[in-house]
Amino acid sequence: MSTPWIEDVQWNADGLVPALAQDAESGELLMLAWMNREALERTVESGEAVYWSRSRRSLWRKGETSGHVLRVKEIRLDCDADAILLRVESVAGIACHTGRRRCFFHRLEGEGTGRRWVVTDPVLADPRPNDG
Amino acid sequence: MSTPWIEDVQWNADGLVPALAQDAESGELLMLAWMNREALERTVESGEAVYWSRSRRSLWRKGETSGHVLRVKEIRLDCDADAILLRVESVAGIACHTGRRRCFFHRLEGEGTGRRWVVTDPVLADPRPNDG
Repeated sequence: MSTPWIEDVQWNADGLVPALAQDAESGELLMLAWMNREALERTVESGEAVYWSRSRRSLWRKGETSGHVLRVKEIRLDCDADAILLRVESVAGIACHTGRRRCFFHRLEGEGTGRRWVVTDPVLADPRPNDG
Repeated sequence: MSTPWIEDVQWNADGLVPALAQDAESGELLMLAWMNREALERTVESGEAVYWSRSRRSLWRKGETSGHVLRVKEIRLDCDADAILLRVESVAGIACHTGRRRCFFHRLEGEGTGRRWVVTDPVLADPRPNDG
């Protein structure tokens, strides 16, 4: 049964919202993934991040296969109620399916026609294609 | 003319990507808005955040009317190239159109049926409906 707090969220036409995960201690932004109502309910109930995989069309408990779980310390909603922020503990210190600490590992560098995305972060663990 | 770095971005079916703004100094997550190619190009060229307003269907230079400009220090792209992170200086210290420091000012509190979104941040300036 839907509860009022979950209906305060402005789910998009596909029933989803973007959900950011930020390291609660360092402030580092780790990843952006998507949630539907059930993913958010399961996240609240379990205290661990659960997302909706748009490519696999299924719920996805982060760290299910890799152990790279995100423990949720706080859940925030923005002014328009259409984006969620999880403040988390990244248990293994690896939030990205590529085996990096965070997903935002490309930085835009250079000028004019020399502009390009440069990888700034090392790979710390084996990649986990379905556990991003 | 499109340049290669901008085509590395995985624009969605509407030609958009979510773009997060994070305070480069404090690490605070300020807001999530959307960009199209032109918004990202103008952000890169001007050094200030420019978004695409989905409701108004127009480009929107953050702070155009309010002066609450976001100066861009760094631009990052995630592993799947479908989310952008701006590390910014929030010039006026007010990033939200409600006049708050950040948009993520609701926190989920309580248990079971008592769960609700609670406003945690004070309003510091007059609301600016079109300058979120």
